[in-house]
Amino acid sequence: MEANKRPLILVSNDDGLMAKGINELIKFLRPLGELVVMAPEAPRSGSGCALTVNTPVHYQLVRKEVGLTVYRCSGTPTDCIKLARHTVLDGRVPDLVVSGINHGDNSATNVHYSGTMGVVIEGCLNGIPSIGFSLCDHASDADFSAAELYVRAIVGMVLEKGLPPLTCLNVNFPATTDIKGVRVCQQAKGHWEKEWAPCPRLDDTNYYWLTGEFIDHESDNENDDHWALNNGCVAITPVTVDMTAYAFIDTLDAYCREAGL
Amino acid sequence: MEANKRPLILVSNDDGLMAKGINELIKFLRPLGELVVMAPEAPRSGSGCALTVNTPVHYQLVRKEVGLTVYRCSGTPTDCIKLARHTVLDGRVPDLVVSGINHGDNSATNVHYSGTMGVVIEGCLNGIPSIGFSLCDHASDADFSAAELYVRAIVGMVLEKGLPPLTCLNVNFPATTDIKGVRVCQQAKGHWEKEWAPCPRLDDTNYYWLTGEFIDHESDNENDDHWALNNGCVAITPVTVDMTAYAFIDTLDAYCREAGL
Repeated sequence: MEANKRPLILVSNDDGLMAKGINELIKFLRPLGELVVMAPEAPRSGSGCALTVNTPVHYQLVRKEVGLTVYRCSGTPTDCIKLARHTVLDGRVPDLVVSGINHGDNSATNVHYSGTMGVVIEGCLNGIPSIGFSLCDHASDADFSAAELYVRAIVGMVLEKGLPPLTCLNVNFPATTDIKGVRVCQQAKGHWEKEWAPCPRLDDTNYYWLTGEFIDHESDNENDDHWALNNGCVAITPVTVDMTAYAFIDTLDAYCREAGL
Repeated sequence: MEANKRPLILVSNDDGLMAKGINELIKFLRPLGELVVMAPEAPRSGSGCALTVNTPVHYQLVRKEVGLTVYRCSGTPTDCIKLARHTVLDGRVPDLVVSGINHGDNSATNVHYSGTMGVVIEGCLNGIPSIGFSLCDHASDADFSAAELYVRAIVGMVLEKGLPPLTCLNVNFPATTDIKGVRVCQQAKGHWEKEWAPCPRLDDTNYYWLTGEFIDHESDNENDDHWALNNGCVAITPVTVDMTAYAFIDTLDAYCREAGL
């Protein structure tokens, strides 16, 4: 990045352009660079890294002022990053991709389901330092004020230091304004239970709403992001987009040979 | 698994219940166990680990015979696994989750976008050994015959040996019936380019279809899945659902302290 040029920051989310979280994020980031926002025109929670393949994707300019351009997009969070790169950025490579601030917890195994992290993984796969921010509060009027200081500091740190190849950040804030500190974490291990609430339609009982309860497999593991959040800390989990299970390669190779493969 | 009991295999895909690939998979797997199939009622390619959160999800019995029960589901591939576990399986835990056979390549970074692998990741997060099969041919009448032998051998191997915690398999077949062998691989590194084809609607030029071209960053890396497929081999890539970038934790911790976080 040239010293006399403001960083170009590409912003998106999965709650959509109307959500409080992305508007707070824009406010927090404006002093730090030139912002191009392309975000879903409606909520896309739980999109993961989903793509839109069976319909065209559309974008539209919503707002343009010095240092801030905002577009709405008909697609998924991942589509937003792909489409912005190939259209409105016109060959300019962002210095940073920032996603959020999500209304809800994206720690632990939620990284797989999160559209917030879908944005971040897409930035990372394209070699752009990328950060996702989430607050553990689903309320539409959630209080993001305590995050401001940390968002600026973490974004400033990543603009200065960069991130290693194939690596991005998943940052989660506890649902409190009384933050106890910052912890660099592992992804907590666990699974979801009681995931479906019946919602019968007339006499058909096979309709369900997704809901659920996270069961932490290591609730006393002080190194994981779930523990950090439960103890009032900001959880910064470095995430790799290389999902290879390297530790299993040799054993799997032996299994295959034994099976005559 | 009790020795005298047939394995229970939960099957899904992302191309939907009408696709040739899942029907071929069912045919290949029937001798190996009792099959419960819950698959999307329509194509859901590129779903990643997406969930349906803003509408209810519905399932319906399609077919029931000895050793095979088939359900259609209105949701995503990931929804299918979650919903089957909590409804039709009625507390029975599958011995295996199998997904596919996908019409199209899910090697390399496609693991993130793939609904086929969304099924597998969901199985794995729930502690069930899980395997995704994909063929590098998008055609609706693709020839899956060469995969039969390998699907049976790989499924048999996993039923016998199991898989380590948090680990699942992404198996891709080259688009040939002349298979040169099997390779245990890493996820190839690369990114997508030329991803959008314009499809203007009347005078609005901001409509695009997703397409693209995969740029391999290490095309001569004989250890990766892209290389294996390009050289006519079946690529078996072990995948971890723990996306923590462990190698970066200490450095990130130092960065944070330096930044006063």
